[in-house]
Amino acid sequence: MSALRFGPGILARHEALARFTQDEGRLTRTYLTAKHREAGETVMAWMREAGMEAGFDAMGNLVGRYAGATADAPVLMTGSHMDTVVDAGKYDGSFGILSPIACVADLHARGKRLPHAIEVVAFGDEEGVRFGATLLGSRAMAGRFDPKALEAKDKDGITLREAIRDFGGDPDAIPTLKRDPAKVAAFVETHIEQGPVLLDEGLAVGVVTAISGCTRVRARVTGVAGHAGTVPMPLRQDALAAAAEMTLAVETYCCARADRIVGTVGKLAVDGEGAINVIPGGVNFTVDVRSPDDAERRAAAEAIRADCEDIAESRGVALAWDAFFELQSAPCDPRLMTLMGECIARAGVKVRTLPSGAGHDAMEMARLVPAAMLFVRCGAGGVSHNPAETLDERDADIATAVLLDFLERFQPSGARR
Amino acid sequence: MSALRFGPGILARHEALARFTQDEGRLTRTYLTAKHREAGETVMAWMREAGMEAGFDAMGNLVGRYAGATADAPVLMTGSHMDTVVDAGKYDGSFGILSPIACVADLHARGKRLPHAIEVVAFGDEEGVRFGATLLGSRAMAGRFDPKALEAKDKDGITLREAIRDFGGDPDAIPTLKRDPAKVAAFVETHIEQGPVLLDEGLAVGVVTAISGCTRVRARVTGVAGHAGTVPMPLRQDALAAAAEMTLAVETYCCARADRIVGTVGKLAVDGEGAINVIPGGVNFTVDVRSPDDAERRAAAEAIRADCEDIAESRGVALAWDAFFELQSAPCDPRLMTLMGECIARAGVKVRTLPSGAGHDAMEMARLVPAAMLFVRCGAGGVSHNPAETLDERDADIATAVLLDFLERFQPSGARR
Repeated sequence: MSALRFGPGILARHEALARFTQDEGRLTRTYLTAKHREAGETVMAWMREAGMEAGFDAMGNLVGRYAGATADAPVLMTGSHMDTVVDAGKYDGSFGILSPIACVADLHARGKRLPHAIEVVAFGDEEGVRFGATLLGSRAMAGRFDPKALEAKDKDGITLREAIRDFGGDPDAIPTLKRDPAKVAAFVETHIEQGPVLLDEGLAVGVVTAISGCTRVRARVTGVAGHAGTVPMPLRQDALAAAAEMTLAVETYCCARADRIVGTVGKLAVDGEGAINVIPGGVNFTVDVRSPDDAERRAAAEAIRADCEDIAESRGVALAWDAFFELQSAPCDPRLMTLMGECIARAGVKVRTLPSGAGHDAMEMARLVPAAMLFVRCGAGGVSHNPAETLDERDADIATAVLLDFLERFQPSGARR
Repeated sequence: MSALRFGPGILARHEALARFTQDEGRLTRTYLTAKHREAGETVMAWMREAGMEAGFDAMGNLVGRYAGATADAPVLMTGSHMDTVVDAGKYDGSFGILSPIACVADLHARGKRLPHAIEVVAFGDEEGVRFGATLLGSRAMAGRFDPKALEAKDKDGITLREAIRDFGGDPDAIPTLKRDPAKVAAFVETHIEQGPVLLDEGLAVGVVTAISGCTRVRARVTGVAGHAGTVPMPLRQDALAAAAEMTLAVETYCCARADRIVGTVGKLAVDGEGAINVIPGGVNFTVDVRSPDDAERRAAAEAIRADCEDIAESRGVALAWDAFFELQSAPCDPRLMTLMGECIARAGVKVRTLPSGAGHDAMEMARLVPAAMLFVRCGAGGVSHNPAETLDERDADIATAVLLDFLERFQPSGARR
C-alpha cells in the first residue's frame, strides 16, 4: 500500500469533504447552502495548495486554474459536481474534483507547466436536488442555461435567483459563464461508474463511449375493476396483469439488445393501492429507456410502445402512453477516447469501453467541446446514490494516475473537433 | 311491464331502503348504527304487513316468521344482510331480504300456509365494515360466532359488545341464537351475482353450486435496487420484473383451469413507491385464489407458489410467501340445487349452475343445514360494491317468482341431509 501515490490521500479528502453535510448522520449537501460554501472553501484551499488560482464564479461553481506554459495556452477543463443527493455516497461527483486536484498538485510539485492550462471545476449543481433542475453548473458553462430556471423555488420557497444572490453570486451574470469553445480544448471528467460493469469484469477503470440518451414514459392501463371471486378469468380486463405483461415486454426487448440498451419500469402503482379481493381496474407505471445510440433508443421506445399497445388490445384494456421526456445522448470524442485508452493500457489495465447510463456534467460540456470520461470501479455491487457506495484506494490511485498521464499527453490541437 | 308481479314493487322498496344511509350522498349502512335500526324498522313493518311476526334478535339480526301449517312445522330459513359496504350499491344483501318478503306477502294474500314455516332473516352484519369481522349474523346462527369478536372496536373505539348493548341487544345471549339443525330444514338465499357470468350469457337467474373457498397470500420479492441507467440488463435483480412474471404465472395457471378456479393479484407495490430512474429493489404483492373445490384450490395455491419460487430462483431474487388466510368452500345441497333448477326451468329460463366466488351468509348457514342460493343477474357489466350496481326489474321479478315456486315446492323431509 505504501506504493500508492494518490489513493490514500484522495480517499482521506473524500472523508473530510463528506463531513460537510446539512443532514445529521448522513451526507446531504445541496446547491448554494452553507455547507456547499464550507465544502467549497475547503476544496478552494486544496486547489490553491496545488498551485491553482481558485474562486467561486457568479453562480457558485468553484473554478481552480493551473496556468499553462504560455499565457494564451488553450484550456483543458476537468471536474465534476460538489452537490450530492439526499443520503448520498462520498464519491459521486467528489472524485472528479479531488482526483484532478491531486494531478495538478503533482505537476506543481514537479514545477511542470503544460502546453495547456488546466481548469478544475467543482460544479455547484448537478443532481438537481434543491431546485429540481439538474446539471445547472455545466449547463451554464455550455451556454445552455435556461434563465427560467432562476424562478424555480426550493422547498422553503426560496428562488434560485435569491439563493445565488445570498451565496454572493450574480444571477444576471450567468450568461457570461459560457465558455468560448475556441479557447477550451476539451473537457474530461473522472467519475465512479455508479454501476457494476467494471466490478463484474475485475477492472479498475474504463473509458466512457457516450453518455446515454434517455426516453421516459408515463403509461396508464385502464381495465375494469371487479370482484376477485366473481369474475371468471376469461371475462376479466385486469389492468395489473396487463401492466405486468408490459413490464416484461420492456425487459424482453432490452435483454435482447443488452449490449446497446437498458430499459426499466421503476414505478408501478395500482389505483388506490388496490385491495387483495379486487381485480385492479387501473395501473400507472413508468418506463425509462437509455442507449448511447439515439436511433437505437428511439427505435426501442417505439417498439416497446407497439408491444404494449398489442398487449392492451389483446386484453381489452386501454393504454395511455406519454413519452414526456427525451434527452439526446452525448458521444465522447473518439480521439480523446483513444488517448484515454492508451493511458489506461500504460497503467497495465485492460481497456474496457462502456457507455454511461447516468447523466454527468460531461454530458453538457460535450455539447460545447470534445469531451471524455474515465470511469473508476464502484464497489459494493456497483451501488451509488447511497451511503453504501465505496471506492477502493487502489482504484482511486490507478484512475488518478491515468488522468495525470492523460493531462500530460493531451495535445490541444489534435483534440479539437 | 304491467305483467310483472313482483319486480316493480321490489325495486321501489330497494330505493326506499337505500335512503337509510349514514353518509351524505352515498349509501353506507353499517352494523348496529342508527340507520341500521331505522332501515330494520322499515323492513320489520314490511314483514308484518306480509303476515309475519318480526323483531330484532339479541345481536340485531331482524327475523320475520311466517308460521307453517302446523305449530311444529320445520323451518325453511331464507334471507341475506342489511349492512352495506362504504359507497355501496342498492341490491347487494337487500334483494335477499326483500324478495322473500314479497313471496311471503303473496302466500299471505292467498291465505296459504306451507308444511314448513318460513323465516326471513335480515342479518345485521355480513360485510364486516364496522368491526372488521365478516358474516357476524350468520356465524351466530350457525353456532360459529367467536366471542372474542365482541372486543373488536370500530374506528371510534366502541366495542362490538357495547354496540350490541346500545342497540338494545344482549351480547351474552348470542350463543342462544344458534339454530337447531333438527328444526331448520334448509337455508336458501337470493342474491345479485356480483359478477358478469349471467349477464354475459343472457340469463336472468342461476343456481349456485358452492360458495368458493379461498387462499390468500402476502408475497414479497427482494431483489437489488440499482440505477436505471447504469446496470446492464444481465446484471439486474429487478424485483418488479420478477413480481410481474409471478403475476402472469398466477393468471396463466388459473386461465388454464378457468372453469374451476380464479386467481387475482390485487395489490402490488414497489418499495417506497419506486422512482422512474431506479430499478426496483423490493415489491410486495397479494394473491387471492378461489375455487368451489377445496382440493383444486389447494393444488393451485401450491402450484402457483412453486411457479413463483422457480421464477425467483431463475432471477436471483428472494421470495417470501405467506399464505396467511384460508377459507373452506361451502357446497350447496344437491337436492336443493335440483329443486331450484326445476323452478328455474318452469320459469322458462335455461338452467345455468355457477359457483359463487364471493362470500355470502349462506356460506355460514351451509355449515349447519342444507343450503341453496339463487343468483339474479347483475347489470352494468356485473359491477357490485359500487353505486353503479344495477338490477333489472324483470330479473327481480323472475328471481322472486322462482323463489316463491321453490318455497312452495320445498319438501322438508326430502331436503334433510
